[in-house]
Amino acid sequence: MTSSGPDHGVTDEASARLAWARISEPTDPVAVALIERFGFVDAFQIAARGGRALNGKVIDRFAGRLKDLHLDRDREVCERLGARLLLPGNPGWPVALDDLEVPPWCLWARGPADFAAVPARSVAVVGARASTAYGNHVAAEIGAGTGARGFTVVSGAAFGIDAAAHRSALSVEAPTVAVLACGVDRVYPTAHAELIGQVTRAGGVLTEVPPGSAPTRPRFLARNRLIAALATGTVVVEAGLRSGALNTLRAAARIGRPVAVVPGPVTSMVSAGCHRAVREEGATLVTDSAEVVDLLGTIGGADLAPDKRGPSRVEDQVGPLASRVWSTLAPFRSKTVEEITVHAGLSAREVLGALGELQGCGLAELRLDGWGRTS
Amino acid sequence: MTSSGPDHGVTDEASARLAWARISEPTDPVAVALIERFGFVDAFQIAARGGRALNGKVIDRFAGRLKDLHLDRDREVCERLGARLLLPGNPGWPVALDDLEVPPWCLWARGPADFAAVPARSVAVVGARASTAYGNHVAAEIGAGTGARGFTVVSGAAFGIDAAAHRSALSVEAPTVAVLACGVDRVYPTAHAELIGQVTRAGGVLTEVPPGSAPTRPRFLARNRLIAALATGTVVVEAGLRSGALNTLRAAARIGRPVAVVPGPVTSMVSAGCHRAVREEGATLVTDSAEVVDLLGTIGGADLAPDKRGPSRVEDQVGPLASRVWSTLAPFRSKTVEEITVHAGLSAREVLGALGELQGCGLAELRLDGWGRTS
Repeated sequence: MTSSGPDHGVTDEASARLAWARISEPTDPVAVALIERFGFVDAFQIAARGGRALNGKVIDRFAGRLKDLHLDRDREVCERLGARLLLPGNPGWPVALDDLEVPPWCLWARGPADFAAVPARSVAVVGARASTAYGNHVAAEIGAGTGARGFTVVSGAAFGIDAAAHRSALSVEAPTVAVLACGVDRVYPTAHAELIGQVTRAGGVLTEVPPGSAPTRPRFLARNRLIAALATGTVVVEAGLRSGALNTLRAAARIGRPVAVVPGPVTSMVSAGCHRAVREEGATLVTDSAEVVDLLGTIGGADLAPDKRGPSRVEDQVGPLASRVWSTLAPFRSKTVEEITVHAGLSAREVLGALGELQGCGLAELRLDGWGRTS
Repeated sequence: MTSSGPDHGVTDEASARLAWARISEPTDPVAVALIERFGFVDAFQIAARGGRALNGKVIDRFAGRLKDLHLDRDREVCERLGARLLLPGNPGWPVALDDLEVPPWCLWARGPADFAAVPARSVAVVGARASTAYGNHVAAEIGAGTGARGFTVVSGAAFGIDAAAHRSALSVEAPTVAVLACGVDRVYPTAHAELIGQVTRAGGVLTEVPPGSAPTRPRFLARNRLIAALATGTVVVEAGLRSGALNTLRAAARIGRPVAVVPGPVTSMVSAGCHRAVREEGATLVTDSAEVVDLLGTIGGADLAPDKRGPSRVEDQVGPLASRVWSTLAPFRSKTVEEITVHAGLSAREVLGALGELQGCGLAELRLDGWGRTS
């Protein structure tokens, strides 16, 4: 470990990105403004010396963390964990993240997933932590169904819908990626140590906060935009009116990604946010993985959802007159052609034509005492 | 009862409308074409003598029923039942029905309801006969909630959702109207004799088929358009993919009325038609009576649904910096300002400002050992 002096060893953009991830909260507006104005390296030097910038204000927001900035130690920890550091311009970087208003400065990743390829065919499945059995069931169907169709299932490793989504992808051996609000070396929630381990081995975990960082509420909110940007589109399975999953949905909508929600009973408060998203935010209503694939898959062809139709009926098979005549027939009581003309309000000629058509389809039969519906 | 000779006593439009209701099925395309071309009286005379019309075709479709046409008897039956015959131009006629592509020739009505006034503030609540307890519950909430807000609940007196809607209106002493597919003198389904009696006394029943007519499948389909046209808008509570309730919804949409559906579990086949209507037919998703009133009530003001919001949070009460600082505080462990600057990634000045704001709102407190979240 080398001591780094007053410039903290930050002389190139890669080091500066790493340093910014360490000293600023994700999407911190002062950091964003400095970096936009001066670039990563110069912005860092201004922050490091507590200089004046941005209309002459003293930049002292980052002083507390600068004292403990050790980039060499960070690099060493990363290597020891088998984590990769992803930077824009490197092959592993998911360029889709650049759609965000504030892309992450850099990313820490673990697992075999090709993160750069994830946004091309993936679905963020997110929702309530306090999900219901219904929500878990639907999340699992969507995760397994899209996973089986070659989609990577992206979620946040939380309790409830997130876990159901990851597990269902694992169950069909589809890749799945968890975007974390803490460092890649940490596990949150701790009860999901096993699940996060499985996800890491089968796909990967990704985060914009440096190793050692704890998950905090602002980091969850910032993390949600990464889930939204990393996936082709976002599906919310259950969400209360204040759910963070809706935050992910809005982040996805803001960058033009397709957004969908699964409806549920109107009596369930964890579906209320989904219903409001349809009513007020233009989210697409989806009811199964086929509809998700239809929404997010390639346009036309194999990814189209089959039409939802009920069982076929007589009206689908014969013309309107035959259908009208058929509706007057009974299975167990025969009717004469004259009776049918009165009941159907049609002429004898029309009735005979219709009966011929129905007989041809096996829907009506001529009996000794008249015509009847085949049963 | 007078014998009526070859013209069947049909010399004026009122008689002709009555006669057409008797000899033709509702919306019969040949009847519609004849009446459009020749007017009610002349069209009837052509039908009665089996003349040629409409590109020289013999009009023999109505012969079977003409044999048994007795308008005087029909009028007598109507009087005996205490039923009113409604005709366009009469004060009781709901002019909204004229929006239909094929308005009814005439209507038979019973009950105290002012049918002409119904379309101004009413809601058609329709849905599956094989409804679930969930659907019945939601239909009842919508019926009672809209009824209490001065809406007439229009439905079809069928099992399931229809019955739940009528009953809920009755329960709040709101007017409710049943549109029947059979004559006003008949009861269908027979198990609803008591319910239809209550609806008749509290509101009314209405039909376009003459007394004595049986309910048939084509008449149900035709009846659905009357439900749609008689109500300000239509709400489908539960509907399978082939439900007749969707037919009502489409009839309403076709004449420009607002249409809405209630979502349900995607695992419930009787909600599948509702979900498809949102996805493919642009139906509005509604979750309670307030949203129905919002959709169908007067624009602005008292009929607006309250915004659906979750419980209020710290972020709603304080600014973004204070919210960020608050999220680093714990209820049981105090933190120094220096610790907070590192955890929040803010300067000491910013942290002190935020703590002041939080203290002012009662969200943070200064203790002997530092700052904590008020619990």
